Amino acid sequence: MINGRCSACKYLRRKCPLDCIFSPYFPSNDPERFSCVHKIYGSSNVGKMLQQLPVHLRAAAADCLCYEARCRIQDPVYGCVGIISLLYQQIHSAENQLAETKAEIAVLAVNKNFQI
Amino acid sequence: MINGRCSACKYLRRKCPLDCIFSPYFPSNDPERFSCVHKIYGSSNVGKMLQQLPVHLRAAAADCLCYEARCRIQDPVYGCVGIISLLYQQIHSAENQLAETKAEIAVLAVNKNFQI
Repeated sequence: MINGRCSACKYLRRKCPLDCIFSPYFPSNDPERFSCVHKIYGSSNVGKMLQQLPVHLRAAAADCLCYEARCRIQDPVYGCVGIISLLYQQIHSAENQLAETKAEIAVLAVNKNFQI
Repeated sequence: MINGRCSACKYLRRKCPLDCIFSPYFPSNDPERFSCVHKIYGSSNVGKMLQQLPVHLRAAAADCLCYEARCRIQDPVYGCVGIISLLYQQIHSAENQLAETKAEIAVLAVNKNFQI
């Protein structure tokens, strides 16, 4: 971190080390990003989870952790699982519509008066 | 907990208090359930998150936390967000199929030879 500490080190009121595990993924101009993951996972767990991954996968993991943490802050009961349930309902509804529409086509196709 | 400690207190090697925040949701016969949430969120965060909710919502929250923790253990980069992305792809594909099928019906319907 050239310009001072990353948002994690600011939040944790510590010096930002050169090899800080957080700094590439928690820039100083976005303090809310770190405070979310800290609130839900704890900074030590976030650091551990990132550390266990190869460097090229850490940015994606940090993004997903932030997304999940924000979901849980917004919906403290269902978190991300609330979104997953909604999406399953949407898929179910789209599949039902598709089945109905295909059945409609099938009826049209067997209609003897039908000709291309 | 009548029969000894809940799985959280067993894991944390502590006495299970009568008002244990974990015991209704982490039975002693399912140690994996607690170890997952402990690994991802830390037991203290899990306890805090449950405590902040009205009692009737805690079971759902514990289930969702377990689901999310298992997702993250299975997929340490994308976690639940990986499932959400897959579901969005499925919805997109179902919607495309539906649009194509509706277009097909529209073509049939305008066909002058078509009669019910």
